[in-house]
Amino acid sequence: MNRTEVTEKIMTAKVRQGLKWADVAARVGQSKAWVTAACLGQMTLTKDQSAVVGMLFGLTEEEQQWLTIPPYKGSMPTGIPTDPLIYRFYELVSVYGTTFKDLIHEEFGDGIMSAIDFEMDIRREPNPNGDRVKVTMSGKFLPYKTY
Amino acid sequence: MNRTEVTEKIMTAKVRQGLKWADVAARVGQSKAWVTAACLGQMTLTKDQSAVVGMLFGLTEEEQQWLTIPPYKGSMPTGIPTDPLIYRFYELVSVYGTTFKDLIHEEFGDGIMSAIDFEMDIRREPNPNGDRVKVTMSGKFLPYKTY
Amino acid sequence: MNRTEVTEKIMTAKVRQGLKWADVAARVGQSKAWVTAACLGQMTLTKDQSAVVGMLFGLTEEEQQWLTIPPYKGSMPTGIPTDPLIYRFYELVSVYGTTFKDLIHEEFGDGIMSAIDFEMDIRREPNPNGDRVKVTMSGKFLPYKTY
Amino acid sequence: MNRTEVTEKIMTAKVRQGLKWADVAARVGQSKAWVTAACLGQMTLTKDQSAVVGMLFGLTEEEQQWLTIPPYKGSMPTGIPTDPLIYRFYELVSVYGTTFKDLIHEEFGDGIMSAIDFEMDIRREPNPNGDRVKVTMSGKFLPYKTY
Amino acid sequence: MNRTEVTEKIMTAKVRQGLKWADVAARVGQSKAWVTAACLGQMTLTKDQSAVVGMLFGLTEEEQQWLTIPPYKGSMPTGIPTDPLIYRFYELVSVYGTTFKDLIHEEFGDGIMSAIDFEMDIRREPNPNGDRVKVTMSGKFLPYKTY
Amino acid sequence: MNRTEVTEKIMTAKVRQGLKWADVAARVGQSKAWVTAACLGQMTLTKDQSAVVGMLFGLTEEEQQWLTIPPYKGSMPTGIPTDPLIYRFYELVSVYGTTFKDLIHEEFGDGIMSAIDFEMDIRREPNPNGDRVKVTMSGKFLPYKTY
Amino acid sequence: MNRTEVTEKIMTAKVRQGLKWADVAARVGQSKAWVTAACLGQMTLTKDQSAVVGMLFGLTEEEQQWLTIPPYKGSMPTGIPTDPLIYRFYELVSVYGTTFKDLIHEEFGDGIMSAIDFEMDIRREPNPNGDRVKVTMSGKFLPYKTY
Amino acid sequence: MNRTEVTEKIMTAKVRQGLKWADVAARVGQSKAWVTAACLGQMTLTKDQSAVVGMLFGLTEEEQQWLTIPPYKGSMPTGIPTDPLIYRFYELVSVYGTTFKDLIHEEFGDGIMSAIDFEMDIRREPNPNGDRVKVTMSGKFLPYKTY
Amino acid sequence: MNRTEVTEKIMTAKVRQGLKWADVAARVGQSKAWVTAACLGQMTLTKDQSAVVGMLFGLTEEEQQWLTIPPYKGSMPTGIPTDPLIYRFYELVSVYGTTFKDLIHEEFGDGIMSAIDFEMDIRREPNPNGDRVKVTMSGKFLPYKTY
Amino acid sequence: MNRTEVTEKIMTAKVRQGLKWADVAARVGQSKAWVTAACLGQMTLTKDQSAVVGMLFGLTEEEQQWLTIPPYKGSMPTGIPTDPLIYRFYELVSVYGTTFKDLIHEEFGDGIMSAIDFEMDIRREPNPNGDRVKVTMSGKFLPYKTY
Repeated sequence: MNRTEVTEKIMTAKVRQGLKWADVAARVGQSKAWVTAACLGQMTLTKDQSAVVGMLFGLTEEEQQWLTIPPYKGSMPTGIPTDPLIYRFYELVSVYGTTFKDLIHEEFGDGIMSAIDFEMDIRREPNPNGDRVKVTMSGKFLPYKTY
Repeated sequence: MNRTEVTEKIMTAKVRQGLKWADVAARVGQSKAWVTAACLGQMTLTKDQSAVVGMLFGLTEEEQQWLTIPPYKGSMPTGIPTDPLIYRFYELVSVYGTTFKDLIHEEFGDGIMSAIDFEMDIRREPNPNGDRVKVTMSGKFLPYKTY
Repeated sequence: MNRTEVTEKIMTAKVRQGLKWADVAARVGQSKAWVTAACLGQMTLTKDQSAVVGMLFGLTEEEQQWLTIPPYKGSMPTGIPTDPLIYRFYELVSVYGTTFKDLIHEEFGDGIMSAIDFEMDIRREPNPNGDRVKVTMSGKFLPYKTY
Repeated sequence: MNRTEVTEKIMTAKVRQGLKWADVAARVGQSKAWVTAACLGQMTLTKDQSAVVGMLFGLTEEEQQWLTIPPYKGSMPTGIPTDPLIYRFYELVSVYGTTFKDLIHEEFGDGIMSAIDFEMDIRREPNPNGDRVKVTMSGKFLPYKTY
Repeated sequence: MNRTEVTEKIMTAKVRQGLKWADVAARVGQSKAWVTAACLGQMTLTKDQSAVVGMLFGLTEEEQQWLTIPPYKGSMPTGIPTDPLIYRFYELVSVYGTTFKDLIHEEFGDGIMSAIDFEMDIRREPNPNGDRVKVTMSGKFLPYKTY
Repeated sequence: MNRTEVTEKIMTAKVRQGLKWADVAARVGQSKAWVTAACLGQMTLTKDQSAVVGMLFGLTEEEQQWLTIPPYKGSMPTGIPTDPLIYRFYELVSVYGTTFKDLIHEEFGDGIMSAIDFEMDIRREPNPNGDRVKVTMSGKFLPYKTY
Repeated sequence: MNRTEVTEKIMTAKVRQGLKWADVAARVGQSKAWVTAACLGQMTLTKDQSAVVGMLFGLTEEEQQWLTIPPYKGSMPTGIPTDPLIYRFYELVSVYGTTFKDLIHEEFGDGIMSAIDFEMDIRREPNPNGDRVKVTMSGKFLPYKTY
Repeated sequence: MNRTEVTEKIMTAKVRQGLKWADVAARVGQSKAWVTAACLGQMTLTKDQSAVVGMLFGLTEEEQQWLTIPPYKGSMPTGIPTDPLIYRFYELVSVYGTTFKDLIHEEFGDGIMSAIDFEMDIRREPNPNGDRVKVTMSGKFLPYKTY
Repeated sequence: MNRTEVTEKIMTAKVRQGLKWADVAARVGQSKAWVTAACLGQMTLTKDQSAVVGMLFGLTEEEQQWLTIPPYKGSMPTGIPTDPLIYRFYELVSVYGTTFKDLIHEEFGDGIMSAIDFEMDIRREPNPNGDRVKVTMSGKFLPYKTY
Repeated sequence: MNRTEVTEKIMTAKVRQGLKWADVAARVGQSKAWVTAACLGQMTLTKDQSAVVGMLFGLTEEEQQWLTIPPYKGSMPTGIPTDPLIYRFYELVSVYGTTFKDLIHEEFGDGIMSAIDFEMDIRREPNPNGDRVKVTMSGKFLPYKTY
């Protein structure tokens, strides 16, 4: 058994039961973004969180244990994603990569935005010309250490 | 001559003159994110905008004309970026790719967040535990057309 | 279970039954191109459409549910397709890529042709020197937003 | 000297002179799509056509000769294009690849749509919801030979 | 079920029965090269041909049907083949690629040798210094269309 | 200086002078295929052959010397060729790779067709349905040594 | 069934039985290097040799037949090997590649060392500073044919 | 200036002067294999050795200094070499990789053959059926440390 | 059966039993780093060590035997790791690669740090600003042999 | 001008002057590892540090300014390094990647070792069996944030 099999089992149960991530998140008591990533095999759950998820999706004791082990992360089957929705995010990195870099350096100096001490939110932004997807990211700035 | 050479000339002039993208943006009259991307060879300027940029960086008539031509976009030398700051954004796509996908589909149905009818802002978020980088993105949701 | 398995089951049933995509499309009540793409795992069906497809190909309740979930898109096993028919389309992008780009920019300015708000038709064009394949594509022009 | 240098010289002259491909095509007496592809280094011109192009862009005798030699084709710097406009066409091949394949085979049997005995047109399709890009392709069907 | 499984079943039966492609070809009534390629999953058989092949290799009704569907072509597991015999053919393309190109263009002008309207023969060429493999290929020349 | 520069110089001179490979081959006294490959940087010339080529294309003493040194071979800029004419040959290897392998093994046992002790001819095959390209290859069979 | 499965069965039996390649080679009556390569799926055995191997590793009639079919060669799961022992050999090709080339050309002229008419031996070379691995390779020189 | 430029200068001088690596090696007082590798930018020379090489190839003081700096090693322009002579060595690693591994492990246990504490010789082996290339390699066995 | 299956069985047992590598290491009597690497399929155990590991994780006789065979090493599923923790180590090689090189060469001359005669330790370094990971590596310096 | 050119100028000056990184570091007043990385184009210097470096290597005012701009990081020309010294570090990541992961997770829970809030030291470890390279790394542990 491995974490990938647990993820696939969760996905199958979710389709069959017609559950929504928003509901799963409410039950787990964390944000939608984090809970979804966790169920999709990218984050580590506590024993309690994994019990909730296990109950919702009908996981065995052992499958729940896998959810508490830090997984080998990376959710895309290829380095450059083929799925159009995910590709658009990759395209933003491709087109705006040097812009991210220059503006963060201009504001903070040399360093990075952490992808670990990080949180994210995705929500609907109503708009008469067509609703918009609003993504807000917040990551701690980590300056390069001089030594 | 090509757009890459104009971009490198802008970068060299910027280093020499110690200009900031915030100032360039103020002079052009658009947001920092867009103006930086444009000067780094990813967006197309109007004749007036290119005159401002040309004046600031000492570009010739012909170099200014290149700024008004839609460039071949893509700012990274390799498909998977080696620069740690840019890589963190790629890592977010890698780790959260399927999360972006599932949450946007759950909220909007099948479709994508546009990377064209899109705007972005990067700013400092003060925080006692260390300031944070706040990135806000807003892209129009485009539903897949059924026909 | 996953969408790929449902697609393979559809393909197997189609071979066994000798069904034609034109017939499937007529039953679903949408165009041939869209219905074929949907059955091949690239588009999302409504509950009603998936019931029709399920009935034609003998799918279970749960398999039909998978058809109503936005799939991870991308239909080719390799980035550069090895199949000669599909490769010819890739070759057109390779050879005419910058031509698409220049002519669309010349007509519309900077932006893209949407691959989401998009429709396509493939049909036979009789010709005494040998019939031709006629492909018509229509995608909304999306201008790059300045902000 | 090589063909790539001639292409870059044409591009530079075009930017400087503000010429349009539509005008170049009218002068050459062929379609916009073909003439653009030819000037971008993908097609071979006759001696007369190359004289017209040479006159428009100020090419030397020798540079005109290069236009009459079949070029090493392929217009994109990477196998998977980074430019968003060109990527959308690649995405269509990725998403609709097996659909192209199945529908052409259903209509014609095993074989391909020629990318050589081929013609293409790109034009604006006015639409109250936003104008559309209309691409029409016509390629001879070539059946696989049995022997 | 898919075509790959049928191909593997044919290979297993061929090993067990010690059949030769030459014999299979004689029974099908086509050339050795074409019949071998077809049985290896690269060509499409008629109903009659597939009945002969099915009888020789003990295929079920459904497996025979798969042989009449145009397959997803491409017989090598990697883009650059690792098998020494196949690599030598790849090496010929690598070393002689521009030679093929220049000599065919010199003789015919811009265009290609068709790999679809194509036939091939492989045979032994007796030679006192060691027998030779003689490969003869004949493909229709297709000129690039000007439009 | 290196061999690549000599090859480019030969190509430039050939375009300027309107020479044909057939004529160059006649002057060198070897076949068209071999002489073209040699001038394109894939084969090694003798001192006498290099003097002839040098005279035809106006090469210096030192440039002629480079022609007598075994070059680093491989004529394509990418592993999978983008040029349609050359790609068709790659496609033949891709589609017929396992067919080459099985038929040669059936005839000769385990081993390869040499790409070194090899000769090739390309010529026009007149045909009322459109002339054909005829490629004839002959390579020594080399059996795998058992030891 | 395929050759890979037979190879894996041989490996499993070898681990279970604690057999040594040296012993297998003695029973087959060929060198250790050749017999090991053959059992690992890279060479073709005669009927007699395959009977010996089949007896030693408990192979069925059909599995033995697979050993007499020329396999699809290439023993590494990735183009650049990750295993440190095998990588050192790749590194030798990487570091000494042009040295092999220049020294063989200096001694023999243009051509190659055959990897088919080839034999190899690996043995221990006692040495007070630590024993050494001695690899001896011998391959026929094949000159490029001029034609 | 960098080491690559020095290597190219050495190659150009060697072609012009018609020097042989055997002679260079004799002058340097080391083996042919090592000296060739060093001149091709893969090894580090002492001050004295670099003075000899500098004198032979007409290098400046500064160019000689570069020869005494450990170079960034790796002599092939692509991961999988395109040159047929070098490819044959890569093919040996590909085909015999697991054989090298198993036989060295059988003889020595887990560990590697060093590619650093290593020496190599290439020479002609006269043979009535065609002379052979004999390559002898000797590398220290390094056992994996247990700790 | 193969080593990968044994590794997966160990991982599954470890999750189920909630064992720690520190405990496994204590039982085996070697360091945490080495024992973890060995259980994850990268090192070779002695018969005694494999008996201990087999007892702890419930392995069969045959599975224990696999642990005593040198494995095909390399623990990451892709050349560039997607897992953020492992990627940070790759990033260190990417960013500091030439620094490692220059400083080791400055101290020791041309050569490498062995990754075979090597040991490593990972431990917690308490720190008021947040605890740190301390990695200590020690590898024998191996000078390039001159011959 | 760009940072790469400044790096190459520093390298050339360093070779010519026979400077050591240890001396440069002493003059800059930071550690050897950091100063070397900075001079090799991976870190950002302060104005004062860049003046020292500029004085040592004879850099112009403008070149010194480039040293104060955060560079596009990544020091290796290929994703998998070809240089043996650097490759050994890559091999450690490849072989020990999952070991790093499991041991850090066992000690700290899910998170990473920072490669930004990081310091490193490389030194000689005298040893009667041959001196060793000792690398000490210390990076802050960053736990994944739950939100």
